[in-house]
Amino acid sequence: MAKEKMVEQITSMEEDFGQWYTDVVKKAELVDYSGVKGCMIIRPYGYAIWENIQKDLDARFKKLGHENVYMPMFIPESLLQKEKDHVEGFAPECAVVTIGGQTQLAERLIVRPTSETLFCEHYKDIIHSYRDLPKLYNQWCNVVRWEKTTRPFLRTSEFLWQEGHTMHATEEEARQETLQMLKVYEDFYRETLAIPAITGQKTEKEKFAGAVETYTIEPMMHNGVALQGGTTHYFGTGFAEAFDITFTDRDNTVKHPHQTSWGVSTRMIGAIIMAHGDNNGLILPPRVAPIQVVIIPAAQHKEGVLEAANALKDKLLDAGLRVKLDDSDNSAGWKFSQYEMKGVPVRLEIGPRDIANNSCVLVSRVTREKKFVSLDNIEAEVQAMLDQVHNELSARVEQNLAEKTFVARNHEEFLDIAANHPGYIKAMWCGETACEDQLKDETGGVKSRCIPFNEEKLSDVCACCGKPAKHMVVWGRQY
Amino acid sequence: MAKEKMVEQITSMEEDFGQWYTDVVKKAELVDYSGVKGCMIIRPYGYAIWENIQKDLDARFKKLGHENVYMPMFIPESLLQKEKDHVEGFAPECAVVTIGGQTQLAERLIVRPTSETLFCEHYKDIIHSYRDLPKLYNQWCNVVRWEKTTRPFLRTSEFLWQEGHTMHATEEEARQETLQMLKVYEDFYRETLAIPAITGQKTEKEKFAGAVETYTIEPMMHNGVALQGGTTHYFGTGFAEAFDITFTDRDNTVKHPHQTSWGVSTRMIGAIIMAHGDNNGLILPPRVAPIQVVIIPAAQHKEGVLEAANALKDKLLDAGLRVKLDDSDNSAGWKFSQYEMKGVPVRLEIGPRDIANNSCVLVSRVTREKKFVSLDNIEAEVQAMLDQVHNELSARVEQNLAEKTFVARNHEEFLDIAANHPGYIKAMWCGETACEDQLKDETGGVKSRCIPFNEEKLSDVCACCGKPAKHMVVWGRQY
Repeated sequence: MAKEKMVEQITSMEEDFGQWYTDVVKKAELVDYSGVKGCMIIRPYGYAIWENIQKDLDARFKKLGHENVYMPMFIPESLLQKEKDHVEGFAPECAVVTIGGQTQLAERLIVRPTSETLFCEHYKDIIHSYRDLPKLYNQWCNVVRWEKTTRPFLRTSEFLWQEGHTMHATEEEARQETLQMLKVYEDFYRETLAIPAITGQKTEKEKFAGAVETYTIEPMMHNGVALQGGTTHYFGTGFAEAFDITFTDRDNTVKHPHQTSWGVSTRMIGAIIMAHGDNNGLILPPRVAPIQVVIIPAAQHKEGVLEAANALKDKLLDAGLRVKLDDSDNSAGWKFSQYEMKGVPVRLEIGPRDIANNSCVLVSRVTREKKFVSLDNIEAEVQAMLDQVHNELSARVEQNLAEKTFVARNHEEFLDIAANHPGYIKAMWCGETACEDQLKDETGGVKSRCIPFNEEKLSDVCACCGKPAKHMVVWGRQY
Repeated sequence: MAKEKMVEQITSMEEDFGQWYTDVVKKAELVDYSGVKGCMIIRPYGYAIWENIQKDLDARFKKLGHENVYMPMFIPESLLQKEKDHVEGFAPECAVVTIGGQTQLAERLIVRPTSETLFCEHYKDIIHSYRDLPKLYNQWCNVVRWEKTTRPFLRTSEFLWQEGHTMHATEEEARQETLQMLKVYEDFYRETLAIPAITGQKTEKEKFAGAVETYTIEPMMHNGVALQGGTTHYFGTGFAEAFDITFTDRDNTVKHPHQTSWGVSTRMIGAIIMAHGDNNGLILPPRVAPIQVVIIPAAQHKEGVLEAANALKDKLLDAGLRVKLDDSDNSAGWKFSQYEMKGVPVRLEIGPRDIANNSCVLVSRVTREKKFVSLDNIEAEVQAMLDQVHNELSARVEQNLAEKTFVARNHEEFLDIAANHPGYIKAMWCGETACEDQLKDETGGVKSRCIPFNEEKLSDVCACCGKPAKHMVVWGRQY
């Protein structure tokens, strides 16, 4: 007895992108709001995406020799204060434990907003000789940054992430690590999330608290807004000096090691949603989708249909695919809409006629193209459509980026684009923070995203002040 | 040029078991102390054990239909107070956040000591019909319980764990889940950690705050002391009533669902150390050992030795084994001691003579038995010795348990055994908390571990008060 059930409506992107996002995260059951201000509940479907992200990234890290560790979640206030720029950057957004075991603590404990200080304290104990280097540590954990305005995945008071912290004997090696890990992020975004994106160096104004240099990956969302998707930092020896970390080098002199850190977080799920989604809901990149293919039987009450559907499911599971068979009594129409909403990349339909023909139908979530395929080679057919979905998603993201990237040759053009064309602006820049501040004020929020690795020379002068230009910068609004 | 390096000495178990433990966790590089009171740093070698534990357990949970989620780490004080027994149990050991973003918070936030209350708040939102049940959720996370006296892995203010929280339509189903998950833990301890252990039900006095019934696994450590290794709880509808969680059942009446929770933590690493270790250091059960086999080349400067060792390493890696080749310039003697200390289950020695004979030597960490094996079938030979080490470890743990379990038929015997024989005591019990209190006081710490599933009838009367006995209890001191 099929009961008619409606898939919940979502606001259209064009009407209200923010509301579309909120509808999707809630109705696709990725998150729920909790009673704790600014903290989210990551539901099974959302957490499964995170698990797939973790598995993929963790393998990339380990392949490069990184090891996982776990540091305490509390940082004594005095420890956080050891590196001046760092504490200035994080103090305003700290959660502070003042009571433990019903007693006022002698020293207040900061819930980690990031763990440079804890890693440094440990490195001081375990690094003594060049033989102890490099140290290539990473940790997967929760961190807390007290936020006034929050949105699921994009900006929450608590979030999940990985933070790599490495120590090297030489500046060259540390700089290489900083760039290497940005490349890992870039590859991961492109190969796994189907999000090709701009990468480059942050300006002095935008870099991480305490870093000498910060590199970033800046994927563009469907509406032209940037999301800072991951950063890697070269610290020089600043922390090492503050924490008195030294090693005896091959030449028998005592030196400070050179440091990096790098991190990506559950924000990436926000990037997936806003880079790929459409007005029917989520579209999940196949390589992290919790369900890669959903099997929907037609006329499932007829003899042999559910048996065939189950056999198909087992066959696909055996091939290592993530499969769901929905044999509930909801209507086929409801199921189609439901799994579109949930962003399942491939739908597989099978009914009595298909079974008679030894075939089934595959439908792409992106293009809705239908393909009749033989059951004989179904694993390869599904895998091929998953790869096709991945490529289609990548191509759409690249096209969106190309269409929404504009060149501003002077101040007037810059303000005009900022006012009328959502997206990125390429413009020359003199190198002064004052110009970044001015452009941000004048446009109500357009900031430098990065100095991209592939700089172009658009003109000789800064698009803000007209003085000689030093760099081309990609500018944009951000989440 | 081999430089002589000494493996650091550890205190012998017989001399001082506590110091032996401290030496092992520190010198085998499992943990380091941090500047934060009661919190530990889990180092790469220790964390890799945890990752192997997680991977194995997580697969067992998922196979039974459980899904992972992530709840906030903060619990508003009012939420924790909703279930009376629960808050009484945890309030004394809470860490409390009172400041966020440089502002005094209107409501204090408790850093989760466990997450029943958060799960219940969420379940209230998502459970409405019998169709929504069961909910089988689990989370991997950090929790905080403020401890006065701490020891790495065994008792730390912050630790890592998993907590399963499930909701069911009927009492029967929830009780079945509670017992099923204890069985999962028991199987995991035996099959993966090589620790066969006693399981049973906690007495009223020892059960979890808010639970109707608590079940436990109580592995015995080498010195006869118990470690509470994992617990599962049946909550009835107590939380559901306190949190107003209801569902409409098939019969159209509104009911409260029945709840369970269950958890194991990084304490398990403490159990591994104290159940299996010896005076040469750690002995890691092969199925969670970060390095299952260490290859130590003999006369590695001679032509062909390192090539052969590397080829062997690749072969074993390809077979899915966790392998390390130590081709450092430390002496073979140092390497032998070092990897014994680190508890690597199997050592593989290969030198010029072995290569000429197409063979190598395998050495078991447990028995130190040497076995000359052909290189032709080396993957199977190594796997066989790993299985043998697993079985030897299990057998030793069982023997230790048998040798250190004593029967007390009366009060005098109980006190005599408690004073003179470290280990477990089997004794009859009347069911009164007063007798548990008295025995604990008289013995300076012997407590009921559990009413085991396989109760025996040792006598008709309580070994404490002499009144009619209700149960056989296993008693013991604990970590």
